[in-house]
Amino acid sequence: MKPKHFTFAEPPEELVLESGQKLGPITLEYETYGELNEDRSNAILVFHALSGDAHVAGYHSAEDEKPGWWDNAIGPGKCFDTRRYSVICVNVIGGCKGSTGPSSINPATGKPYGLDFPMVTIKDMVNAQVALLDHLGIEKVLAATGGSMGGFQVLEFVTAHPDRCQLALPIATAGKQSAQNIAFNEIGRRAIVSDPRWSKGEYYDGMAPVDGLSIARMVGHVTYLSDETLKQKFGRKAKNGASANGGLMLEPFFEVESYLRYKGQAFTRRFDANSYLYITRAIDLFDLSAGCDSLEPAFRNCKSRFLVLSFSSDWLYPPYQSEELVEAIQANGLAVEYHKIESTYGHDAFLLEAEKMEDIISRFLITDSRKKYYEVERYYPGS
Amino acid sequence: MKPKHFTFAEPPEELVLESGQKLGPITLEYETYGELNEDRSNAILVFHALSGDAHVAGYHSAEDEKPGWWDNAIGPGKCFDTRRYSVICVNVIGGCKGSTGPSSINPATGKPYGLDFPMVTIKDMVNAQVALLDHLGIEKVLAATGGSMGGFQVLEFVTAHPDRCQLALPIATAGKQSAQNIAFNEIGRRAIVSDPRWSKGEYYDGMAPVDGLSIARMVGHVTYLSDETLKQKFGRKAKNGASANGGLMLEPFFEVESYLRYKGQAFTRRFDANSYLYITRAIDLFDLSAGCDSLEPAFRNCKSRFLVLSFSSDWLYPPYQSEELVEAIQANGLAVEYHKIESTYGHDAFLLEAEKMEDIISRFLITDSRKKYYEVERYYPGS
Repeated sequence: MKPKHFTFAEPPEELVLESGQKLGPITLEYETYGELNEDRSNAILVFHALSGDAHVAGYHSAEDEKPGWWDNAIGPGKCFDTRRYSVICVNVIGGCKGSTGPSSINPATGKPYGLDFPMVTIKDMVNAQVALLDHLGIEKVLAATGGSMGGFQVLEFVTAHPDRCQLALPIATAGKQSAQNIAFNEIGRRAIVSDPRWSKGEYYDGMAPVDGLSIARMVGHVTYLSDETLKQKFGRKAKNGASANGGLMLEPFFEVESYLRYKGQAFTRRFDANSYLYITRAIDLFDLSAGCDSLEPAFRNCKSRFLVLSFSSDWLYPPYQSEELVEAIQANGLAVEYHKIESTYGHDAFLLEAEKMEDIISRFLITDSRKKYYEVERYYPGS
Repeated sequence: MKPKHFTFAEPPEELVLESGQKLGPITLEYETYGELNEDRSNAILVFHALSGDAHVAGYHSAEDEKPGWWDNAIGPGKCFDTRRYSVICVNVIGGCKGSTGPSSINPATGKPYGLDFPMVTIKDMVNAQVALLDHLGIEKVLAATGGSMGGFQVLEFVTAHPDRCQLALPIATAGKQSAQNIAFNEIGRRAIVSDPRWSKGEYYDGMAPVDGLSIARMVGHVTYLSDETLKQKFGRKAKNGASANGGLMLEPFFEVESYLRYKGQAFTRRFDANSYLYITRAIDLFDLSAGCDSLEPAFRNCKSRFLVLSFSSDWLYPPYQSEELVEAIQANGLAVEYHKIESTYGHDAFLLEAEKMEDIISRFLITDSRKKYYEVERYYPGS
């Protein structure tokens, strides 16, 4: 599996963003798994979360330590069975994994964009991917799925582009970002911009703001886990050889501290701090209700059939937020199947509980992929 | 109300800490409210939480904007009725509000201790306060109470000094610090020590690590609130005049961001970063079970009667952690009354829900304060 690239090279080579600003030319890095069938009706678009990328499954080379980020859910016989479906995953714009983002070269200056990169939103991320679907000649995907910010993209995709998706599987997500989640993201952003190495985003020639980014990741990481997981995994275990008195504040004492520091530091080797700022801002701005109290109007033109999944211990996007989505979808007469899956893994459950999702997802996909689009549309709306 | 000071000036003027190190001379800042009765049997010792101080109620002067931190619970006719009881509150050692801590002058060098301050634990904080009780001639307090880290001190006090406390009221607390809470504290510590101004703790001559301390406080602050409170208080309200595009990463866009930044910055004007490091470490090291699975043995010699309070939306010290305490107390045949109080305020409920606690607490105190100590001891153990 090798990443592919698509650059908006034909006019219009710029994407008009939600803000009205233009961005271009845009390169998108994407990967595909499984064969697209003759009538291009078996595509499944997988949207990634904050720190994800196009490498959703498989290995790039025999030397890779780990497969793609959702390998346990994507492959032959898995939730998204690549013997049957063609899975596509695209790195978001604003990111740093091959698609155009703040660390890309700004054609106007010949230097990395930094803070000259325009604000991008979830809508912009989705619009860029729709341009890729056009390029691939895929008029309508069989399904769109993703967890967390990936779920935001699913919701944006099926509500703003109602004719381009048959089945929607938003997982561990919400119709809008909560105040608590904005708060956590803001802490991460403050940690990055307070790091003197950040230099207002112009650090590409020197040392990146690794301390700030590492702290931002530590915050994120705790919110992805659960009280229960942390208890089971680490509890109050002291680090081998740690002394409460020695190296008091500089050395970790508990294993959980050591683990978090490791996770934070490792992240700085694979992620760009400016991308972290831009993507978390896009996440925070996401609000399908567009300032209304209700999510209901957002689904007015939607034609997809839904499978909504939440996880019992997810406190970042708690089940009640999925349930609000389900109500809004139902209120529009759209078919929706909902499962709150029992798990102790917190938000990360969407990445870890592939086995628990397998039956639910594969049944949902198989039932509906046997029907033609027009039939589905006739069967479900208003049911 | 004016703060009083007590310095261990008589030999032994040093306190032997849990680590074996010695600290001294030690000054404690404390305040008292209400008259101590003739037989000194109506004292209530209130332990403060991480960022608290001795100023628990009332005003120091007419210019004060705010009263003490638990003023709604302490005063005539309140939960802890100062017409009836004499309330004492002491700033912990390691702190920065008048008691000896890392910002105090190290007599050995004539400069602030900084990281030369020894590690202190919850046990050390309590032992210092027991020395103050001796100084005040109070053999036994009627009650000890406190929320959060204050609750840790209550538990330490009544288990390590079983003859010195009749009634114990640990509120919104736990028998040991959870891995999740250690993780949040570690993020705060990393933010502080990553701030270049921290200078390994030797910043007292220059600029304090305000960016790091501010981020640490922001993390803490979010954990003190609840998803529900943040939703009700801020929701997704944009800041007046904020633009998602203007001042993208440097300016707050949402009100919740602006609020958090304000809270973080305000904290740096009243709290010492090294104290934050030391006190959070003391909190993280607290484990009444001393590494056992069970909290039960900790209460073996305890003689107090308990009122344990938790709050439904507190996710920092969730009700289940109070319930573990209650089970351990009951298993030792000690009397314990437990209430999980419904509140949307999260952990901060212990500071805000004084009205909901009033009946419960005042009834608990009045019933028992009418009995003599020896009677209480005869009535309750083994019941």
